Amino acid sequence: MNESGLCLSGTVVADSQTVVHDGAVAVEGSEIVAVGAREDVLERYPDFPEQSYDVLVPGVVGGHIHSVQSLGRGIADDAELLDWLFDHVLPMEASLSAEEMRAAAELGYLEMIESGTTTCIDHLSVSHADEAFEAAGELGIRGVLGKVMMDKDSPDGLQEDTEEALAETERLVQKYHGSFDDRIRYAVTPRFAVSCTEECLRGSRRIADEYDGVRIHTHASENQDEIATVEAETGMRNVEWLHEVGLTGEDVVLAHCVWTDEREREILAETGTHVTYCPSSNMKLASGVAPIVDYLDRGINVALGNDGPPCNNTLDPFTEMRQASLLQKVEALDPETVPAEEIFEMATVNGARAAGFDRLGKLKEGWRADVVGLSTDVTRATPIHDVLSHLVFAARGDDVEFTMVDGEVLQQEGTVTVADAEEIRSRAAEFAEQYTPEDAPVAGSAD
Amino acid sequence: MNESGLCLSGTVVADSQTVVHDGAVAVEGSEIVAVGAREDVLERYPDFPEQSYDVLVPGVVGGHIHSVQSLGRGIADDAELLDWLFDHVLPMEASLSAEEMRAAAELGYLEMIESGTTTCIDHLSVSHADEAFEAAGELGIRGVLGKVMMDKDSPDGLQEDTEEALAETERLVQKYHGSFDDRIRYAVTPRFAVSCTEECLRGSRRIADEYDGVRIHTHASENQDEIATVEAETGMRNVEWLHEVGLTGEDVVLAHCVWTDEREREILAETGTHVTYCPSSNMKLASGVAPIVDYLDRGINVALGNDGPPCNNTLDPFTEMRQASLLQKVEALDPETVPAEEIFEMATVNGARAAGFDRLGKLKEGWRADVVGLSTDVTRATPIHDVLSHLVFAARGDDVEFTMVDGEVLQQEGTVTVADAEEIRSRAAEFAEQYTPEDAPVAGSAD
Repeated sequence: MNESGLCLSGTVVADSQTVVHDGAVAVEGSEIVAVGAREDVLERYPDFPEQSYDVLVPGVVGGHIHSVQSLGRGIADDAELLDWLFDHVLPMEASLSAEEMRAAAELGYLEMIESGTTTCIDHLSVSHADEAFEAAGELGIRGVLGKVMMDKDSPDGLQEDTEEALAETERLVQKYHGSFDDRIRYAVTPRFAVSCTEECLRGSRRIADEYDGVRIHTHASENQDEIATVEAETGMRNVEWLHEVGLTGEDVVLAHCVWTDEREREILAETGTHVTYCPSSNMKLASGVAPIVDYLDRGINVALGNDGPPCNNTLDPFTEMRQASLLQKVEALDPETVPAEEIFEMATVNGARAAGFDRLGKLKEGWRADVVGLSTDVTRATPIHDVLSHLVFAARGDDVEFTMVDGEVLQQEGTVTVADAEEIRSRAAEFAEQYTPEDAPVAGSAD
Repeated sequence: MNESGLCLSGTVVADSQTVVHDGAVAVEGSEIVAVGAREDVLERYPDFPEQSYDVLVPGVVGGHIHSVQSLGRGIADDAELLDWLFDHVLPMEASLSAEEMRAAAELGYLEMIESGTTTCIDHLSVSHADEAFEAAGELGIRGVLGKVMMDKDSPDGLQEDTEEALAETERLVQKYHGSFDDRIRYAVTPRFAVSCTEECLRGSRRIADEYDGVRIHTHASENQDEIATVEAETGMRNVEWLHEVGLTGEDVVLAHCVWTDEREREILAETGTHVTYCPSSNMKLASGVAPIVDYLDRGINVALGNDGPPCNNTLDPFTEMRQASLLQKVEALDPETVPAEEIFEMATVNGARAAGFDRLGKLKEGWRADVVGLSTDVTRATPIHDVLSHLVFAARGDDVEFTMVDGEVLQQEGTVTVADAEEIRSRAAEFAEQYTPEDAPVAGSAD
């Protein structure tokens, strides 16, 4: 941590309503101690060294991420959904050794750190979850991570015994929840209702209630087949079923919620359940368009997520902001729908609420020092009429040059300082070779 | 031109079906003279110096671009469509001086050259079109450009007399069509049916027929209000009306075509009219989802375009490829819809067909030497399972490091060699200041 303090100067986008041109953010330890006009902040903290970036923003919160799917980036592009999941993504997850899981997690966290995500609500895999917790802890990202549980109708290598799944979850909660200076927390993570027994789902609620601050993170109502399966088995719609078994509430994050009916939306609103909108994933997997405008109208807290590299194909949070707004606009046939301010809130404060970290998602005195700095020295950023809308519609993760989490500098002047990025990439690329699909286009002569 | 020859080596994506790993492209003068395995190509051209890039692809063709709207990037984000057009974009176009038009055009061409677009079908403005022609010619991009004609119901500063609009068009055709070694060609460019009289539209066809190789480029059926207006005036649907006045055919490029009925689609197919799909623009302006799958099924040639910076907000052709596929997938609720190969064809060969340049859009012996080189040394490109799908789903214009048009190197190792990029950006930013909307968020203190 910056025990000695640091002043970050530039155009400060403190939150969706507050832009300070020629501003600064002072950080001491793991906290922001001042935000305001550069002159004032530097006067208050004259001994703090100064670093300048064109634009400073709160670190982005990835509200639904699969970091450990990173080795499968592009593994099944353009594939039919069930083939995508059962022939490619799940077998890949099942086959990962501890060492490969570590490499996959590091690749995911590296991409997030480089491109401006400072907190992730991260859906791991069934096995080797310790590897991801250790990687996140060591690389310095903030996260709410959880080992996946699958105790029903799951492929070989992933299918677990219910008791063992819950016991392993509890072991990990005890080991990692609140670890690394409380930067890393736990989310009990049943995969989705289709692959979890009632006992597993109810057990998830029991564990979350037993440990203070532990959250619940699962997929819900991403596509219509999933809903039909749950309905056939339980007689209830997916979110109704999750509600029935205790998996709604202010400590629950449901990814997707593309297909929900009136009653389910009432449940989400009444229980304070958080929804994570994953527009690129919903488009690429052709799941559908989530009714985000309606959720926001009902006061449901909506976060934003990239999902995993096999369905995105990147973890770039700025491209995701752009996508989030554009998809809602074309769906509503109304260009005023979900403007930049609302998107920026989804990607920052709303995500922080979903993750359960207080004092997170704005640049504000007394708040946690998760700060990202971007360059605007690119043609794409010329001119900038409104910095907030630039961030949502034109910026890219590629513009991020500075990343700080909990007062710790993870990236500076475009270079990740907490790890050897080149080494992480080459190790990951090596492990990933085994997943290259056999029907990939064969190299040939172009003559 | 490279009279002395050049060998470009790397993974060569010659077209949507042909990938040569450890390949090379040899260029002499303005032509590709060899494509194949690196070893073979270097053996054939031992005297050519070699430059290596991770991936080499055909230059992208921007099938519908407004380069001169670049000063208005982000000028009216999240605005209602008619406000966007009549309160912001058209007044900006109307107000541009010759010097500002030049700065705007240079900014647009710079962004395209930097991010991989080597040919643009470019919709200029009513006045000062010479400035854009000169800028395109000097910066080295390939283009089919046209002065916009607006002789009906148009705002002050844009409304023209019909005769004068057609006469000015003919003057520009004579001056610029086939100029700069035939790298720059002309497209007669009535803005759209709403703002052009029948005389102007029929005059467009007459000019295009009179000059060999001149094309016609206009907007068509982008949104439903436009169609209702045309129908009220002519008793015909928009594309039917354009067909009636002669603006369909193999030399015609219609941007958007979001809303067309069965008869209009038959007309497009029967006449060989080209359609440019602009997914980001159609999303941001909430125009709708163009029926691209149906167009492709009918054999209509579909190109891809970024439209203008006020409605995109970038000219990044790789983000546009991603968007093009993702939007069709979610619309069809089918993840196999419009796969990477088809998108890559839209962005290259289909665009070249629309632009009317033969031997363009593939890396092929005897074809024009428009070549782009990308880096894959980024986390976002790790791993790559299939290079073609990487280009469509994960690559960004930011990855482009090399750009060649007609055998001329415009960008090398990430630096534009034909202009001072920094100077173009700062001049553009200065001119753009006057367009900052008055209701932009006011800078304030975040305390």
